[in-house]
Amino acid sequence: MKWGIIATWRMAKEGVEAASDMLKEGGSSGDAVETAVGMVEDYPLYKSVGYGGLPNENCEVELDAAFMDGDTLSIGAVAGIKDYKNPVSIARRLSEERFNTFLVGDGAEEYAHKNGFERRNMLTERARKLWEKRVKEIREKNLSPYDGHDTVGMVSVDSMGQMASATSTSGLFMKKRGRVGDSPLSGSGFYVDSNIGGASATGLGEDLMKGCVSYEVVRLMKEGMHPQAAAERVVYQFTRYLTEKSGKAGAMSVVAMNNRGQWGVGTNVEFSFAAATSEEMPMVYVAYPKGDKTVCEPASEEWLEAYTKRITSPVE
Amino acid sequence: MKWGIIATWRMAKEGVEAASDMLKEGGSSGDAVETAVGMVEDYPLYKSVGYGGLPNENCEVELDAAFMDGDTLSIGAVAGIKDYKNPVSIARRLSEERFNTFLVGDGAEEYAHKNGFERRNMLTERARKLWEKRVKEIREKNLSPYDGHDTVGMVSVDSMGQMASATSTSGLFMKKRGRVGDSPLSGSGFYVDSNIGGASATGLGEDLMKGCVSYEVVRLMKEGMHPQAAAERVVYQFTRYLTEKSGKAGAMSVVAMNNRGQWGVGTNVEFSFAAATSEEMPMVYVAYPKGDKTVCEPASEEWLEAYTKRITSPVE
Repeated sequence: MKWGIIATWRMAKEGVEAASDMLKEGGSSGDAVETAVGMVEDYPLYKSVGYGGLPNENCEVELDAAFMDGDTLSIGAVAGIKDYKNPVSIARRLSEERFNTFLVGDGAEEYAHKNGFERRNMLTERARKLWEKRVKEIREKNLSPYDGHDTVGMVSVDSMGQMASATSTSGLFMKKRGRVGDSPLSGSGFYVDSNIGGASATGLGEDLMKGCVSYEVVRLMKEGMHPQAAAERVVYQFTRYLTEKSGKAGAMSVVAMNNRGQWGVGTNVEFSFAAATSEEMPMVYVAYPKGDKTVCEPASEEWLEAYTKRITSPVE
Repeated sequence: MKWGIIATWRMAKEGVEAASDMLKEGGSSGDAVETAVGMVEDYPLYKSVGYGGLPNENCEVELDAAFMDGDTLSIGAVAGIKDYKNPVSIARRLSEERFNTFLVGDGAEEYAHKNGFERRNMLTERARKLWEKRVKEIREKNLSPYDGHDTVGMVSVDSMGQMASATSTSGLFMKKRGRVGDSPLSGSGFYVDSNIGGASATGLGEDLMKGCVSYEVVRLMKEGMHPQAAAERVVYQFTRYLTEKSGKAGAMSVVAMNNRGQWGVGTNVEFSFAAATSEEMPMVYVAYPKGDKTVCEPASEEWLEAYTKRITSPVE
């Protein structure tokens, strides 16, 4: 039986490996994406998701996450939640509710508390140091404070043909308190329908939500387009359109998979991702734009080593 | 020059009248929808928007609002904001920012405070009484607490051909703290592109966001469909699809207008709305589903009187 999983960024590697073991054994796509996103949330050196995620301008780690079930279209989401270990699991639990499925701030924390989710101080010493360094740089060099918005987003199909999608992020580094990007927003950060396929986006959330890019990729797959063609078309058309309309378009990357396990990626910046299917071993790829196409190549040993070195190097 | 505005529910009547005066004089669609939504927010007897809006289960009035500029696709949104007089104006101000354009909870309040927006205790005596009554009914009759989710949502085109959309709501009556519906979510509660048209939805937010219904209506208009046909198709197809996928579909109503001022409505429940164009006087209509069509009729004097009686009658 065919199965598959695709996820944004190199940081998804270990999660995709674990998820592919689950999917191979007949596990569900819902469990696969929850486990894989949870592993990214738990790893302290991934600085844009979960534990160790970079804080907002007030040095608070505020997290957004979502889960969507492709069989029922049920959605659960949280935004601006602080100090819970696994936002993606809270989102998944919310997707089982009929009402009140998207909760923000204190309300999200109350729900998590009442439902027994684990509390954790999500600010690491390393993230605090990076925050302090950045505050200093912004002051000294008069920089725009905003960069770094690397959401983990995944889509999976399991051997029963059921699909799921999940996202998790600490959002824009140095964001204003309470800022929400595309990650918890249906159609923008994620969308999945087991009858078709799914997509998940990362990049500048403020721009991604102007185009409902994940929904649009799924819609093109519904019209019969391959995930690769659908992701490319949406990213390049919308980048151009938004530039025409507003003078600029931010970073935009989308991963997509259809219900046969075929996958594709569209990006307007250099972007890494991880994928595994019943026919392909888990692998990290590097993607970059080339005209109206996105080229995807397996990440080289050098690239992977440089990545590890970068995320483990001491903060001066 | 042609112009037009369409808005969900009878409560938009006074706002649509004021907006149509502005549009007639050459005013912009952005000013028109902000003014019209602001009037709904300010009126104490409209119990699902702004001042006098029904509170959450903790008796707190938490408000969601959004604004979208159809020329630039810029979006501003707030969710779970308490005690500010005009959430729609805060959302519009946020739409002018490049980053941090969607703010929730305390962060939204901080932004509003720093930007000089007016504070107001948004809980009226009447809303508190309705809350107490409902708490008692739920306890005594073991009712599901959730009903009443009448978002005001608007789309306008001005005589320059520029379009805008805005929404505002106090959300589901008796919602959990922090609950966010479709109203502040791009593509779900609203979407507008001056090159095409716009749409805004009301109903059960948890279900509306599963279909990105406002985006989909605009997309069908882009393919050349009349707003009426587009709104009907999306509402009935998605109601059926969601029922197949999950066993049920909530209330769903969409108003739509294209950039020539043609308008349409699709709804799966009885629903009222208000519209005005350069060729049509401001009018309240009642819409109801009939097969795969939505019938729209001017509201009768009796209907309008019964409405006024209902919203002004004392709370027992």
